[in-house]
Amino acid sequence: MIYLDNSATTKPYPEALETFNIVSNQFFANPSSIHGLGGLSEEMLKRSRTQAAELLGVKPSEITFTSGGTEGNNLAIKGVALSYSQRGKHIITTEIEHAATYNAFKQLENAGFEVTYLPVNHKGRVNLEDLKKACRKDTILISIIHVNNEVGTVQPLQEIGEWLKEQRATLFHVDHVQGIGKVPLNLKEYGIDLCTISGHKFHGPKGTGLLFVRGGVSLSPLFSGGSQELNRRAGTENLPGIAAMVKALRINLETSKRHLDDLKCLKNKMIRSFETNDDLIIHTPAEFSAPHIINVTIKGIKAEVLVHALEEDDIYVSTKSACSSREGGASRVLLAMGIPEDEAAHAIRISLSLENTSDEIDRFLDIFNKKINELKSVMG
Amino acid sequence: MIYLDNSATTKPYPEALETFNIVSNQFFANPSSIHGLGGLSEEMLKRSRTQAAELLGVKPSEITFTSGGTEGNNLAIKGVALSYSQRGKHIITTEIEHAATYNAFKQLENAGFEVTYLPVNHKGRVNLEDLKKACRKDTILISIIHVNNEVGTVQPLQEIGEWLKEQRATLFHVDHVQGIGKVPLNLKEYGIDLCTISGHKFHGPKGTGLLFVRGGVSLSPLFSGGSQELNRRAGTENLPGIAAMVKALRINLETSKRHLDDLKCLKNKMIRSFETNDDLIIHTPAEFSAPHIINVTIKGIKAEVLVHALEEDDIYVSTKSACSSREGGASRVLLAMGIPEDEAAHAIRISLSLENTSDEIDRFLDIFNKKINELKSVMG
Ligand SMILES: Cc1ncc(COP(=O)(O)O)c(C=O)c1O
Ligand SMILES: Cc1ncc(COP(=O)(O)O)c(C=O)c1O
Repeated sequence: MIYLDNSATTKPYPEALETFNIVSNQFFANPSSIHGLGGLSEEMLKRSRTQAAELLGVKPSEITFTSGGTEGNNLAIKGVALSYSQRGKHIITTEIEHAATYNAFKQLENAGFEVTYLPVNHKGRVNLEDLKKACRKDTILISIIHVNNEVGTVQPLQEIGEWLKEQRATLFHVDHVQGIGKVPLNLKEYGIDLCTISGHKFHGPKGTGLLFVRGGVSLSPLFSGGSQELNRRAGTENLPGIAAMVKALRINLETSKRHLDDLKCLKNKMIRSFETNDDLIIHTPAEFSAPHIINVTIKGIKAEVLVHALEEDDIYVSTKSACSSREGGASRVLLAMGIPEDEAAHAIRISLSLENTSDEIDRFLDIFNKKINELKSVMG
Repeated sequence: MIYLDNSATTKPYPEALETFNIVSNQFFANPSSIHGLGGLSEEMLKRSRTQAAELLGVKPSEITFTSGGTEGNNLAIKGVALSYSQRGKHIITTEIEHAATYNAFKQLENAGFEVTYLPVNHKGRVNLEDLKKACRKDTILISIIHVNNEVGTVQPLQEIGEWLKEQRATLFHVDHVQGIGKVPLNLKEYGIDLCTISGHKFHGPKGTGLLFVRGGVSLSPLFSGGSQELNRRAGTENLPGIAAMVKALRINLETSKRHLDDLKCLKNKMIRSFETNDDLIIHTPAEFSAPHIINVTIKGIKAEVLVHALEEDDIYVSTKSACSSREGGASRVLLAMGIPEDEAAHAIRISLSLENTSDEIDRFLDIFNKKINELKSVMG
């Protein structure tokens, strides 16, 4: 199998699953129970939180464990909007967000908030000047995706963060779900107040994630109840999932340190191959893009048809984002970049992980080219 | 080890963990991905949903998978409140709810909803007449816990549900987290519109749960994003957790069919023993109570002290609910039942599962009595 749909989800590391099993059996007690077994679970939870914080360069009290990226984005965005609505009701995001952010903003718009959706250029990038113009005295939140999940564009977060530091009243949320382990992000230096990551995108278990919430930021919780997670997220903690996610995060960041350049080579190998083929239009920009995502249109061949043709050879790629791939229509993200509807409808996404090998990419390119030629000749 | 804190959480069934591992490795693809691997995951998700629906006697489309009981209660309560607020802003619950429900109502109260908290009698039961008096034309939701998690009282849900069927405008949510597998509940017959269960209370994985949402009921989602779970709950599905939870549910309900009477015997054995001891005051009512929870005050001995004394012999019981056990003060639930503050502060909760044995209970009673005598003599 050559699995190139890693932006949809990844296969869990065996070590992460092992942790899940050990914690499930040996630390099954509720961390809130006051007896000794509960104490052991509480210790394990604390250790996981401390380790996650160290890996991200933040404080343990700034980590809120969640059930995934969608929860993280919704908690950050709705949590801030509801908590700071007295200060203002204007919030800003971009036209190329993941559905979790985009639809959270739509829901807030329906609830009386005013939203500015920043446009992007043909590379999928927002412009600091547009943001400056959009920002007002009553702007309480700006939420921007770090690495776009469909084309891989990286946003100028450092530039934005540095400018935002001067705008005291506006909180800065970053959806880092596709960036973690692939494109470094310095939460403190960039002045980021809230940051979402999701376990299953870096070989951790599904149903896990975390939200960084800078000390001092207040959030209206989505889940009220017990006082877990400093009252930001009630509910019995998914301790096996948390410990396994933190294990995966550690492995992933270590692997990234050693092999991020290899990943870049794999991507460049694909890009070079694609560039020689006149039937292809590459949408992923050459600069300001992540090392693991390539979005490409195959002229005259429907994306679904190619996905299924590759599948016959046990190769897995996708059309747009998994979340919206079953809905009809062209990708909202590609359209926002100014790509014509017809071209957008013929685009596929190839997404790598640090686990993919050079051999896999060679075999993929071979079969990919073969399939395109076959399909072209069939279609006459 | 004699683990008697099963209302806080249970140890996962080995079979549920096995399912978790198999699904994690073999069905790791995103169910929303359109390729064949995604299709296999989608199939597995559909099978899990169908099986859960069959076990609960409802339709597959009426099952929303969640991350646990706290999410289920919050989604049901806030989801209905926000979705039906045009129809009315009055909502009803009881004084003895779990914190997840109680605090969701508090949050809605702060957001402009009017809440009636129904009182309970000394057994911890609400009264249909009180509910009838509280119900108004603009009452859009009633949320009632099935089995109270601290004392085990069972509410008269059939009676309430039958009366509510005539009040067309009011939706009926039940927190069934402590009831499942212990006290049968007929969702259709009782006219229940929404019902929460949580995986880790019946030997499923933590971070899993489901919300039953009767067809036709509309919910404002807590998580916006992709169109998963019929738009009621966005986010990549925790498929290993879902499949493992449904496996645990099946095993638990089968075990319950065969061994619920044995569980009742264990509880009665404890009650009979406690009744002979003048130092004890049993708060769990003799009738209308679940077979797995006993709440009892030990005169003159602080609950924490006894919990830790039992722990020395590898026996685990708790003070009030796990969620609130680290907060000071007497139990809100016991106080609502009219139990004096001092008595409430000396109460412990013993909670069984279908896995506890008669031997364990004999040994527990032995050690329990010994510890009480020791502590009494120490305290002079
Ligand atoms: C950029 C981005 N944000 C958020 C999400 C949502 O994360 P999750 O699937 O964990 O809910 C995803 C993936 O689906 C994503 O790619
Ligand atoms: C009655 C009741 N409702 C809700 C919950 C919350 O469930 P969870 O721990 O899965 O969030 C619990 C347990 O904590 C409970 O006992």
